[in-house]
Amino acid sequence: MALIGLDIMGGDFAPAKALDGIAKWLAEHADSSSKILLLGTAEALADASARFAGNTDRILMKEAPEVIGYHEHPVRALKEKQQSSIAIGFGALANGKLDAFISAGNTGAMLVGSMFSLKMVAGIQRPTIATIIPRGSGKTGLLLDVGINSDCKPEQLNQFAAIGAAYSKTILGIDNPRVGLLNIGEEEGKGNLLSQQAYPLLKTNTHINFIGNVEGRDILIDRADVIVCDGFTGNIILKLLESVYPVTREQGIEHSYLNRFHFEQYGGTPVLGVEKPVIIGHGVSGEEAFANMIGLAETMIEKNFLPSLAAWVN
Amino acid sequence: MALIGLDIMGGDFAPAKALDGIAKWLAEHADSSSKILLLGTAEALADASARFAGNTDRILMKEAPEVIGYHEHPVRALKEKQQSSIAIGFGALANGKLDAFISAGNTGAMLVGSMFSLKMVAGIQRPTIATIIPRGSGKTGLLLDVGINSDCKPEQLNQFAAIGAAYSKTILGIDNPRVGLLNIGEEEGKGNLLSQQAYPLLKTNTHINFIGNVEGRDILIDRADVIVCDGFTGNIILKLLESVYPVTREQGIEHSYLNRFHFEQYGGTPVLGVEKPVIIGHGVSGEEAFANMIGLAETMIEKNFLPSLAAWVN
Repeated sequence: MALIGLDIMGGDFAPAKALDGIAKWLAEHADSSSKILLLGTAEALADASARFAGNTDRILMKEAPEVIGYHEHPVRALKEKQQSSIAIGFGALANGKLDAFISAGNTGAMLVGSMFSLKMVAGIQRPTIATIIPRGSGKTGLLLDVGINSDCKPEQLNQFAAIGAAYSKTILGIDNPRVGLLNIGEEEGKGNLLSQQAYPLLKTNTHINFIGNVEGRDILIDRADVIVCDGFTGNIILKLLESVYPVTREQGIEHSYLNRFHFEQYGGTPVLGVEKPVIIGHGVSGEEAFANMIGLAETMIEKNFLPSLAAWVN
Repeated sequence: MALIGLDIMGGDFAPAKALDGIAKWLAEHADSSSKILLLGTAEALADASARFAGNTDRILMKEAPEVIGYHEHPVRALKEKQQSSIAIGFGALANGKLDAFISAGNTGAMLVGSMFSLKMVAGIQRPTIATIIPRGSGKTGLLLDVGINSDCKPEQLNQFAAIGAAYSKTILGIDNPRVGLLNIGEEEGKGNLLSQQAYPLLKTNTHINFIGNVEGRDILIDRADVIVCDGFTGNIILKLLESVYPVTREQGIEHSYLNRFHFEQYGGTPVLGVEKPVIIGHGVSGEEAFANMIGLAETMIEKNFLPSLAAWVN
């Protein structure tokens, strides 16, 4: 039985969308043994109590009188607001009272909390975050790092490759995922210093199915299941792809393919490399995103995913 | 009177599309005093002679018996094929017999030829290449570097900013172009080491209208007229944007906005920073692209654009 912490103060529509998402998840996972611990202010918890009066076996609550805002400095906020939902969530996760923690609140605070509160999986140097990439025929790729590690060493890219392959296989269910190194040029030896040095590491990494360099034109097509890059490049790509939906909508273009660039539907971004599941939601997360985040946390716990990463990087 | 060299052996449909483009340019610029020197094999020139029999005052020809293929090693090919259209073109450009040189042939050979044959504009450290970015309402932005400089120093980004601003103002006709530094995060101090160090240089650069950091989500919107980044990031973005047209077409989506991602329509990529105009076309360049490249070369010559760059970087 897993206990998943959920910060109901995070997100632009807190706590309403979080509560909607929990309701959706409860309805769709009636047979799940997981429980959810809601963290929020007394007022927000009162809303939740009224809504989940019939679910007290699965929905638990803990008051967190403080709230970290979106624009607060992450390190300072976590230090000064120890009674905030995010600080309490990480405290409970670190000391084993929670099995996972989810928030659509201050992204920086979520990252700092992950790195400062939790241990790394043995052998992993730095945590990473990944994004789903929508592709034709309903397929999805995975791109990482998308923003935590703006300057990387070759060995880090090699670890992201292994972590991405593990996620693709275990969580996304892709058999023997193809791993590509994002680069400018197809042949080994092309690219910037980082990609030139990372290539031979990926090539000799026996844990992954390395298919070589992939280029910008390969991101949206089904060439590699996992695409590895530094967090600077990855974050630029992620935000560019996130802009496709609003930009095309503004041009009056509507199409089911473009709808898949509505990234909130994918739920949140798990922090990969720390020992416990932490899932960071978009500020605009809605009902589906929250339900998906709970489902992802449950899957990561059930499959013992994060501890299993040690076998991929060592 | 300018003499523009044009390699008719470059491009996937050589020499037909080049000749179509020349015909289009001739028809649309009957009052231009520029002449074009066609470089190609005897066979290709025979086609051209037949086609331009009535234009011998404006269309000149020089035989180049050798051709550099797309997959040849640029440095080796230029050295070994000194009678190729690209080698002869650069020779004539370097010794002042041509005022500009255009080819849709081997991109690497065009870059190597530019760097090895031509002097740099005084004060510019490295040449750069830029791409037009299509935006809503028919507007365009400029992104650079898009691939020559995969590892950059902060001072190089600062020079690209000035070069891009000059191009935006002089060639694209944008008054006081807004220059943004591509980064992950909006505030000064964010980003990777390169962007952190480049920011204060751009901020104090009196030649440009620096508006601060821009993010991936700003690329497709009208926030900055010129976006500066290293050539690794820029090339990934360029190739990703180039994939938008074929990927959406494959999904059955047709729209005038998406047609603007058909990059061939913009003609070629000028090499910025060398003393003489060199324009590199896409392999798939068609009639319109070739006509646009001739027009761009003419504009760069008329406006004395490349020599004028010295005032932007010193």
